[in-house]
Amino acid sequence: MKQREFIALAGLTMSLLILGGPLSAAPALRPKKPNFVIIYADDLGYGDLACFGHPTIRTPHLDRMGAEGAKLTQFYSAASVCTPSRAALLTGRLPIRTGMCSSKRAVLFPDSAGGLPQREISIARLLKQQGYATACVGKWHLGHLPPYLPTQHGFDTYYGIPYSNDMKTDPSIPLAEDCRLREGMTAERIKSEKPRAHWVPLMRDDKVIEYPCDQKTVTKRYAREAVQFIRKAENKPFFLYFAHTMPHIPLFVSDDKKDTSLRGLYGDVIEQIDWTVGQILDTLRQQGLAENTLVLFSSDNGPWLVFKTHGGSAGLLRDGKGSTWEGGMREPTLAWWPGTIKAGSMFTDMASTLDVLPTLADLAGADLPADRIFDGTSLVPLLTQTGPSQRDTMVFYRGTQLRAIRKGPWKMHLYTKTEYVRDKLEKHDPPLLFHLEHDPGEQYNVSDKHPEIIRELQREISKHQATLEAVPSQLEKRQT
Amino acid sequence: MKQREFIALAGLTMSLLILGGPLSAAPALRPKKPNFVIIYADDLGYGDLACFGHPTIRTPHLDRMGAEGAKLTQFYSAASVCTPSRAALLTGRLPIRTGMCSSKRAVLFPDSAGGLPQREISIARLLKQQGYATACVGKWHLGHLPPYLPTQHGFDTYYGIPYSNDMKTDPSIPLAEDCRLREGMTAERIKSEKPRAHWVPLMRDDKVIEYPCDQKTVTKRYAREAVQFIRKAENKPFFLYFAHTMPHIPLFVSDDKKDTSLRGLYGDVIEQIDWTVGQILDTLRQQGLAENTLVLFSSDNGPWLVFKTHGGSAGLLRDGKGSTWEGGMREPTLAWWPGTIKAGSMFTDMASTLDVLPTLADLAGADLPADRIFDGTSLVPLLTQTGPSQRDTMVFYRGTQLRAIRKGPWKMHLYTKTEYVRDKLEKHDPPLLFHLEHDPGEQYNVSDKHPEIIRELQREISKHQATLEAVPSQLEKRQT
Repeated sequence: MKQREFIALAGLTMSLLILGGPLSAAPALRPKKPNFVIIYADDLGYGDLACFGHPTIRTPHLDRMGAEGAKLTQFYSAASVCTPSRAALLTGRLPIRTGMCSSKRAVLFPDSAGGLPQREISIARLLKQQGYATACVGKWHLGHLPPYLPTQHGFDTYYGIPYSNDMKTDPSIPLAEDCRLREGMTAERIKSEKPRAHWVPLMRDDKVIEYPCDQKTVTKRYAREAVQFIRKAENKPFFLYFAHTMPHIPLFVSDDKKDTSLRGLYGDVIEQIDWTVGQILDTLRQQGLAENTLVLFSSDNGPWLVFKTHGGSAGLLRDGKGSTWEGGMREPTLAWWPGTIKAGSMFTDMASTLDVLPTLADLAGADLPADRIFDGTSLVPLLTQTGPSQRDTMVFYRGTQLRAIRKGPWKMHLYTKTEYVRDKLEKHDPPLLFHLEHDPGEQYNVSDKHPEIIRELQREISKHQATLEAVPSQLEKRQT
Repeated sequence: MKQREFIALAGLTMSLLILGGPLSAAPALRPKKPNFVIIYADDLGYGDLACFGHPTIRTPHLDRMGAEGAKLTQFYSAASVCTPSRAALLTGRLPIRTGMCSSKRAVLFPDSAGGLPQREISIARLLKQQGYATACVGKWHLGHLPPYLPTQHGFDTYYGIPYSNDMKTDPSIPLAEDCRLREGMTAERIKSEKPRAHWVPLMRDDKVIEYPCDQKTVTKRYAREAVQFIRKAENKPFFLYFAHTMPHIPLFVSDDKKDTSLRGLYGDVIEQIDWTVGQILDTLRQQGLAENTLVLFSSDNGPWLVFKTHGGSAGLLRDGKGSTWEGGMREPTLAWWPGTIKAGSMFTDMASTLDVLPTLADLAGADLPADRIFDGTSLVPLLTQTGPSQRDTMVFYRGTQLRAIRKGPWKMHLYTKTEYVRDKLEKHDPPLLFHLEHDPGEQYNVSDKHPEIIRELQREISKHQATLEAVPSQLEKRQT
């Protein structure tokens, strides 16, 4: 109801403007489309920011972002591993609809031949049609072959590592003519040595410009690129997708940040990401753009716990990366838009990366194409505190397997696999049931007390499954 | 070094004032002694406040207290259960020195005959000698027989439940003549029914004034008492010790707060405590006392996990109440003193309730008696950011058994008992070793990699044990 009232009111204001004689003739009065920045960390845990409770990682810029904006405490990614999570963020659609998941391979690898299909519409393409300047800085991981690169998906420019930073790349990859070799490397050495895990390329647009990428400096270089993009944006609204390579294993940090965090190398890396957030917010302020820019911060999935202190912490949530327990898919999320989002808000409504595309489309005045299913709705009512989030349900997939579903506070698990202890996949019949708002740590199964909730959630699953259509998996295609 | 420089500088300023002619004659210029408020929750977990990462408990007043002041992220109570924890807070001495622990009984019970001995000097007594008005509001649990009550330990007044709220009290306890019976109760009913767990007395000074105490309204009534005490303080500096009865089990909350939190009854209770903090801070502001009052918020021990959703969460820390794992003894702690503590600070230095008495003594200009060992040092350098915390070591006792020790980032466990799963006591030889700043969740034992640290920590234990003297346990004495 509240949302409808808001829309009605907005419509009224618009009519008044249109009918208002002198005012209606002035195009300068038409509200400027807002800018958007998405900062996406890689494998950051729910408990890894100071404002989400970490005791020895200092994140003053992210804390300030939350204090000046909002913390979202029940915000989900759509998958607990990189490729499907990112595909869902950029398309607003579940990976099961786009082919960006598989039962065989969790993510894309350097030998993969697939990627985000052209028929999918990314946030960047949608916004470009609305006159936005668009840039992707950082990790892509939605296909590194020419047809799938960011520049083929609506981004004017791309600068970054095209997949995970541990995906060693055979040095026989075609190198661009102007490709720099990392300091201390020679073409001979590259050819003679066995490639190491972190020998990955750095690309600009569709060309490799550095190999192996110097990962110690890459976070800083990403920030510089991102800042330059914002500075160069002039009269055009812009969309910046800033997807960090870190804190994915192996961890790298610039020399000046090394050994500066109490939390060790993992903390150094998070504190450097925090610094980049400060760079972005400071630039927006300096350029006078703060009040016309929505900045979102989140992570693609939970912490990679098997790497012990090189992985992060999901705080009070259970398990981490790769898991459909909360620690795998609930992310530490912040939203910042001075003057629009009330400072110091804590939004406990359920929301998801799946809602980001509908939200940005709503704010940019773009219609959602009617020829496909989107799995989210606009968060504008939530962000502007004019209504609740419209999200009442969340499905939890691992690959192509639906393992759990949440409706309201209730989460039902059909299958669980605890990644932290490399557990086996377990089927639950009857399913497990948790009240996530009373029991965010998923500790107290109450399925025997609520058979009616189990039945309701099973009906929701059937409803969801009836909307699915078979699509080829992009993750199973390999280069021959 | 920094602390010493600070003291030297303070001395210099003082000399200048004394020598400064006209200034030295004006007694009004002598700095007014600061007021102190300690707000102590009961069984609150490290992860139970929004500013410590809880997703569905809203604590806007505590969050604001942290934003205007400081979060202390490595702050320890001196025991993981009520009585010894409170004894340590109020005396600045480990319970093993004061007799406020035992290997047989964890805490004082209604049939106990002991209490905090008169030879111990509480914060209240120390400050009273410095001209402070002193009040204790809430849970005492340091002896409920006449010789041990707050009014015998330096508090001008007392209002509260003298022990835990689940300690059913035989209705034959002597009731004061003016004792009210709780609404709906009659003397006959009380005598004829078996007392229920939450039938506990409410006292004013040394008299029972209500039985059984109406626990639904007690938190609000505590707040009213506390606010009145602050309002009545006129030219005297004051010390208010406000020790909540909640969220100890059984949980009670006033009707207007019931079912208002997403987290269920436990959340309702925490949000009501948060409201009381707002009442205190608002009153201090209204009275113009904010800039001359240090407010500390903490908890006596970790969450009582066996009570499932009626217990709290230790966030990313391991285990809870009763345990010497971090979840039992590291507390969500905030310090607020506008103009003195820098807004938005995050103090990661190790500190403890054992440091509170030396800190308040330091600020009030009281000397610590030289006839006994204190187990803490002043936190003034930390709070004023003129130097680090002087605490480098923390010992972790359960009852009279030293189970673990921390020095710097290293914590060594000789014995563990995981309370959450009602585990058995386990002896570790070699001991377990964790790097708490890299691994706050105590997940990754590294004892085999650091034999030299193990040896150093064993030496620290020997040094500590050499300072102990036998004292009779107060917790083993029973009324005959």
